Amino acid sequence: MTTKANSLRPTNKDAALVDRANDVIANGMYGHQSVAGLPDGFPQFFARGEGSHLWDVDGNEFIDFMCSYGPIVLGHRHPSVDRAAAEQQALGDCFNGPTEKMVELAELLVGITPFADWAWFAKNGTDATVYALSLARAQTGKRHVLRASGAYHGAAPVWMKGAPGTLPEDSAYQLLYTYNDLVSVNDAVDKAGDDLAAIIVSAFRHDVFHDQELPTREFAQGLRDICDATGAVLILDDVRGGFRLDLGGSWERVGVKPDLSAYCKAIGNGYPISAVLGAEKLQEATGKVFDTGSYWYQAAPMAAAIATITQLQETGGIGTMERVGNRLRKGLAAQAESHGLEITLSGPVQLPFMTFAGDDGSARAIPRAALFCNEAVKRGVYILPHHNGFLSAAHTDEDIAKALEVTDVAFEAVKNEFGRA
Amino acid sequence: MTTKANSLRPTNKDAALVDRANDVIANGMYGHQSVAGLPDGFPQFFARGEGSHLWDVDGNEFIDFMCSYGPIVLGHRHPSVDRAAAEQQALGDCFNGPTEKMVELAELLVGITPFADWAWFAKNGTDATVYALSLARAQTGKRHVLRASGAYHGAAPVWMKGAPGTLPEDSAYQLLYTYNDLVSVNDAVDKAGDDLAAIIVSAFRHDVFHDQELPTREFAQGLRDICDATGAVLILDDVRGGFRLDLGGSWERVGVKPDLSAYCKAIGNGYPISAVLGAEKLQEATGKVFDTGSYWYQAAPMAAAIATITQLQETGGIGTMERVGNRLRKGLAAQAESHGLEITLSGPVQLPFMTFAGDDGSARAIPRAALFCNEAVKRGVYILPHHNGFLSAAHTDEDIAKALEVTDVAFEAVKNEFGRA
Repeated sequence: MTTKANSLRPTNKDAALVDRANDVIANGMYGHQSVAGLPDGFPQFFARGEGSHLWDVDGNEFIDFMCSYGPIVLGHRHPSVDRAAAEQQALGDCFNGPTEKMVELAELLVGITPFADWAWFAKNGTDATVYALSLARAQTGKRHVLRASGAYHGAAPVWMKGAPGTLPEDSAYQLLYTYNDLVSVNDAVDKAGDDLAAIIVSAFRHDVFHDQELPTREFAQGLRDICDATGAVLILDDVRGGFRLDLGGSWERVGVKPDLSAYCKAIGNGYPISAVLGAEKLQEATGKVFDTGSYWYQAAPMAAAIATITQLQETGGIGTMERVGNRLRKGLAAQAESHGLEITLSGPVQLPFMTFAGDDGSARAIPRAALFCNEAVKRGVYILPHHNGFLSAAHTDEDIAKALEVTDVAFEAVKNEFGRA
Repeated sequence: MTTKANSLRPTNKDAALVDRANDVIANGMYGHQSVAGLPDGFPQFFARGEGSHLWDVDGNEFIDFMCSYGPIVLGHRHPSVDRAAAEQQALGDCFNGPTEKMVELAELLVGITPFADWAWFAKNGTDATVYALSLARAQTGKRHVLRASGAYHGAAPVWMKGAPGTLPEDSAYQLLYTYNDLVSVNDAVDKAGDDLAAIIVSAFRHDVFHDQELPTREFAQGLRDICDATGAVLILDDVRGGFRLDLGGSWERVGVKPDLSAYCKAIGNGYPISAVLGAEKLQEATGKVFDTGSYWYQAAPMAAAIATITQLQETGGIGTMERVGNRLRKGLAAQAESHGLEITLSGPVQLPFMTFAGDDGSARAIPRAALFCNEAVKRGVYILPHHNGFLSAAHTDEDIAKALEVTDVAFEAVKNEFGRA
C-alpha cells in the first residue's frame, strides 16, 4: 500500500478478465458487485483476502472497508470460522436433511436474541425478507405492508416497485412512510385501514446516496405500539446491521423488540446463510408458509455461523469495530476540517458513510465523493462513494492510521478540484 | 446395511434432536427436508456422507437414492470437487467482487451449452426461475407467462399461487397448460393474446405424486415454434434435470433450444450455486433487470462447479448414472412382476420414480408407496414415496444389487399388506 497513486501498477489482468467476462457473463457483470457504475480505478476481480486486507488480480493490496458488502465481520479467512466449516465439510455438507449444527445454531441465536423463540435459515437476505412478509400475511390474513421510502429490502420483484422486469402487481398493497417520521407512518396506517399485515423497517436508514440515520427511540417504539394496537407484524430488516451493532439484534440499542427479524451478511463471516428469527406468535404461521431451497440445510455454513457468532461474543468483536470505527470517523472529520471541506459522517461508526456538502445525493450527482473514493482506491483504501462501508473485528489501529494517510491525500484532491465547499 | 428391519437400532439421538428442534426451529423443521410428511422411519438429522452412502445421527447407513434432493451428482465428498473448493477457500471466498473462477465457470458453461451466449449465477433454483421471468418481461414488455399445471418452479410467491402467505397478485398474468399437450398450450396462447412474455417448462414432467413424463419432441418443438412466432421467451427449468441428462442442457435430447435455462442442484455437487444461461437476444435485458445477493459472487462454489462439470465430462458421469439407473429400473420391474404387483417406473432412469397401481397419487393417497419406502429406509435404502429419486455417478452395481435385496423385501411387505394390485 502506498499513498502515491499507483498509476504505474499493472492492470492488464483485471482488464483482460473484464474482456472475457463481457463475452460470457450477463451484462458483462451484474448486481451490486458490478463496478460499471463506480468511479475509475475500482478493480472488478479479486484474488485473495486476509484479515482486513484484500488483493485484486493484479496484486494491488487494499485495506478493505467494504468487507464484501458486509459478510466479512471477523476478517477474511478467519481461522476459527474456516476451521469449523472445514471440519463439517470433512463429514459432508449437503444431505437429505440437516445436521445437528442446525439445532445448535438455532439454539445459539434464540439464546442471544431477547425477542426470538425460533429460527429459520435460507441463503439470501431477500429470502429472509420475503419469507417474513409471507409469514405476516399468513398470520394476519391481511395484505398491506408499510415500508420506508427509498429503503432496500432485497432484489425480489416484491421489493423492486417499478423496476424493469417487474409488474405493478408484484408490489401490490405496499404503502410508504418516511424513516423516523411517525406522522408519515400513521398516514400510511390510516390508508391501510383494517388490512394492515406488517410494517417492515431497516435497523437504521441506509439508503444508497443518502446520509444514514439511526432510528429514534420514539420512532421505533411508535412502530411497536402501532403493531400492538393493530395486530400487524413488526419486521426488522437487520440484514445490513445484524451482528455489527448488537448480538441480540440491532434494535436492542433502542430497546424495542420486533416480531420478526431478517439476517444475512455478517452471520457467517462470508459463508452463505441467511435467517429469520421470530416470536412465538408467528410460530403457527411457519407451519403454513412453504418456502425452501436446494442448499438451505447445508451444514458447513451453519458451523461457520456458530463459530462467527461465538468469536464475536468471546472477543468483543462489536466493541472492536466501534473503537476503530470511532477512530476512523474522528480522523476523517478532523481531516475534512483541516482542508476546509464540509462533510457529513453518518450512521453507526461500524458502517461508515461520508457525504460532501457540495454533492447532491438525491440527484445521484456526487462528483466529490467519486473523486475522493477514486483517489483512495488508487492508494489502497477500498471504500465506495454511494454505499456505506463496513468494518470488521480484524481492522486495527494501524489500518486506520494507514487509511487516514490516504484519505488526507484524497481530501486534498477534492479541495484542489472543487475548492472549499 | 441389512435386509432385516433394524427395529433394534438406537434412534434416540435423532429423537432428541427433533425435540430440541421443536423448541428453536420454525415449525420444528420446514421446507422440503422436513420429514413430518414422510412415512415413519425416515431420520430427520444426518451425520455424514461418502460417495453414494450416508449416515444418520444414530449411525444408520443408507444407500442414498435422493442425493440431497439432487445436488450430489458425483457422490458425497467427492475429492476433486472438495479440493477445488478448499483451494479457493485458502485464498478467500467472498470478496468485494468476483474472482477469475466466475469467468472460467461462465466460459465452461457457455462452451458446453449450444444455445447459451452468457451465464448468470445466484444461490437458489428459485432465484434463477424468478430472474428468468423478469428478463422475459423486460425483454418483451409483455406480462403473461404460461406454465404447466402442477409444475414446481420454486417456492417464491410468484410460483405458489394460492399458498398461505401469498396474494393473488403475486401470481398475476399466469396461464396454465398441460405438460406434453400442445392443444392446451395453444388455448393458453390464445388467452394471452398479444401480451405473452414467456413460456416456462420443466425439462421433463416431475410433479410430486405424479408419474414422470419425458417431453415429446413434438411438444418441445411446438413450444419453440410458438415462441418464435410470438416473440415470447422460452424458459427451460432445468433445475431438477440439469447435469444428469445431458451436459449441454436436458433438451439437447429432444433437439430443441430454449432462450433461457435455469440451473441449480447438480451444478456444484452440493456447493451452493444456481445459474441462468441465456441466448444473445436476452443479453440486453440483463442490463436492465437488477437482481443480486450477498453471496452470489462467492468463488468457492464456482470452483466446485467447474470441478463438478469437468469431472462429469472426463469420467462420463451421465453414462454411469444411466447404466446403474437402468439396472435399478429393470430390477424393480422384475421384482414387482414376480410379486404380482403392478407398478409404473417413469421418467429418466437417472431420476427414478415408482408408483403403485392401487395408490392414488392425484389424491395424495399412496399407502403402498409409503409402506414400500418405510420398509426400504428401515433396511438402509433411502428413497421417497412421493418425489423422484436421484442417482449419482458414485452409485455402483454393488449399490444397486444391495438395494434390490432390500426392495424385494419391501415389495413382499406391500403384497402382504395390500394383496396383489
